[in-house]
Amino acid sequence: MASDFGLPANEHPETGFGVAAGPTLAEVGEGETLKRIFPRLPHADAELLGPGDDSAVVAAPDGRFVVTTDLMVHGPDFRSAWSSAHDLGVKAAMTNLADVAAMGARPTALVVALAAPLDTPVDVLLGIADGLRDGCALAAPGCGVVGGDLSASPALMIAVTAFGDLEGRAPVTRSGARPSDQLAVAGDLGRAGAGLWLLFRDGVASDGAGGERVPDAGRAAAVRDAHPELVAAQLAPVVPIALGVPAAVGGATAMLDVSDGLVLDARRLAVASGCSVQLDPAAIELEARALRELDPVVGDRAASFVLAGGEDHALLAAFPPGPLPEGFRRLGTVLDRSPASDVLVGDTPYAELGGWDPYDGWNGAAG
Amino acid sequence: MASDFGLPANEHPETGFGVAAGPTLAEVGEGETLKRIFPRLPHADAELLGPGDDSAVVAAPDGRFVVTTDLMVHGPDFRSAWSSAHDLGVKAAMTNLADVAAMGARPTALVVALAAPLDTPVDVLLGIADGLRDGCALAAPGCGVVGGDLSASPALMIAVTAFGDLEGRAPVTRSGARPSDQLAVAGDLGRAGAGLWLLFRDGVASDGAGGERVPDAGRAAAVRDAHPELVAAQLAPVVPIALGVPAAVGGATAMLDVSDGLVLDARRLAVASGCSVQLDPAAIELEARALRELDPVVGDRAASFVLAGGEDHALLAAFPPGPLPEGFRRLGTVLDRSPASDVLVGDTPYAELGGWDPYDGWNGAAG
Repeated sequence: MASDFGLPANEHPETGFGVAAGPTLAEVGEGETLKRIFPRLPHADAELLGPGDDSAVVAAPDGRFVVTTDLMVHGPDFRSAWSSAHDLGVKAAMTNLADVAAMGARPTALVVALAAPLDTPVDVLLGIADGLRDGCALAAPGCGVVGGDLSASPALMIAVTAFGDLEGRAPVTRSGARPSDQLAVAGDLGRAGAGLWLLFRDGVASDGAGGERVPDAGRAAAVRDAHPELVAAQLAPVVPIALGVPAAVGGATAMLDVSDGLVLDARRLAVASGCSVQLDPAAIELEARALRELDPVVGDRAASFVLAGGEDHALLAAFPPGPLPEGFRRLGTVLDRSPASDVLVGDTPYAELGGWDPYDGWNGAAG
Repeated sequence: MASDFGLPANEHPETGFGVAAGPTLAEVGEGETLKRIFPRLPHADAELLGPGDDSAVVAAPDGRFVVTTDLMVHGPDFRSAWSSAHDLGVKAAMTNLADVAAMGARPTALVVALAAPLDTPVDVLLGIADGLRDGCALAAPGCGVVGGDLSASPALMIAVTAFGDLEGRAPVTRSGARPSDQLAVAGDLGRAGAGLWLLFRDGVASDGAGGERVPDAGRAAAVRDAHPELVAAQLAPVVPIALGVPAAVGGATAMLDVSDGLVLDARRLAVASGCSVQLDPAAIELEARALRELDPVVGDRAASFVLAGGEDHALLAAFPPGPLPEGFRRLGTVLDRSPASDVLVGDTPYAELGGWDPYDGWNGAAG
């Protein structure tokens, strides 16, 4: 089965987290493992009935709730040679919180379904719980875990479902942008993509057998030491979740989080809204320069990372003309639908798709 | 990795559903697969904003929502040699709907995160979608799927998160039972356990290599033809979800769904409520007789299946003295906490634990 994902035989994907090997799930058992996990999970202010019953009960003060779910699977979505267990918890929280924030909602609660091989050290699960806690504390204080499920599986996977409160406002969808709106972003652009590029370039070692390059924990640690911001942006991103509500209050007409790259997600917003989007070359160059100044290793690739690098989960929004809410930077303009292209950079149609499709497969050695 | 679960080499767990091999996920791609799945999914009456944006929005009229999540993984939780894709969809829906109903809530919506190997035929995913639709239609009309996520993984897995509406009532927890309450059940007892016993006994074939007995699709089909009710109860249970609300309205003091066996779940209710539970031997014998009359194959094992067979997801509840809500059958009485045992059958403490722990491992040949 592993070969479907190009997982090399010399990587033990279940226990490669670089934690001290300790008692495993099989040794500790489900009940005791849950007992150790629960006290580490963050409490949700909106929790009316917490874990331990058939279901939890969560407050939804305005009579509605926002819900999103996102699944991370070892192999296609993360590598244990690169990510710590804590990284995984942070990223699993953050990607879901970003989807809630992108509706203009305040995140209230998470439920977490986790499946792991029986030989996974319990410490890996505790590390994930700590990451969920720290991710919530950093980006969405008051949001916590109200329930979950734990199961056995051949590969580690985490399915997080996140909830949010619209506080009486209409949800900000992808489809409300109008010509003459400004396109703006809050959060990083290009860092996570540059981090992934570095990990693929320098965080791999030659497999003795076939000579194929495979993820290597030691080399990845060296990459992280040399390029901490870029690697952290990829493995444990921190997104300005708290800017989702001010964006909605500030009149955002459309919003989504940049999970698959600026151009691809700008195109989604444009298509859903029946418009086109014109990115301002000067604004893109400013973003690229900031990325180069953060870490010169990106060099000439900076603009490509800004335009096509995925997984930053920045909030991309359209606003009517006028001052932008604090934390948002102007990137361009919404235009009438152009037959030439959904996305233009200046006057040039941007043809490359960019972005990340899990069904495009996975090549552990590809750069 | 497969060996962790005793998955034999001659079973191809990803494509063993007995469906006509068709185009795979890798061939069809994520976007097109989602396009084919969405029209088959059931619509939720409570949906305010459906799939296609960063999050969905669901109505929660009384300012709260009930939420539960449950994960099914190929190997520990189901076998593709035994379950059809449609079975999986029905069971994934039903187990979660039962957790909502057990709070006394009306199920409103589901979100579904699904991961599958890239060589899975798209028809398997469509079959799962049809099962989710039929499960909702059968047991919780008006409940539907409002969002989801699709990912690649080495083993097929489905994480369903389900929501419910308490309609202004307090949730019915496990902890409210009081001495002199009646213990009662709605739904089947023992059928699913008997079905699993039959599948392990007759739905396996000898593996040519080691002589180990492994799940076999042809033999399982023969078992299903000979014992349709028992096998269907295991693979695609139908639970009286609609009785959860009348139980709450009718004064249930505690409720949970019987997922791990009557005795084990009665013990949970007893411990949470600080009581003991006395099962009435005559009531248990009535249940056993009904099971024997349904299918004589269970023979002398009938009472054991009734007491310790899991996965029926019947609703087990405590009610004050008086008439029971329609559809509930009296099984026993709630007592003051007894030092002898949390669960007694007549005057005999019931010592065997029974039930199902995913971390007890998995032995494909064990009966």
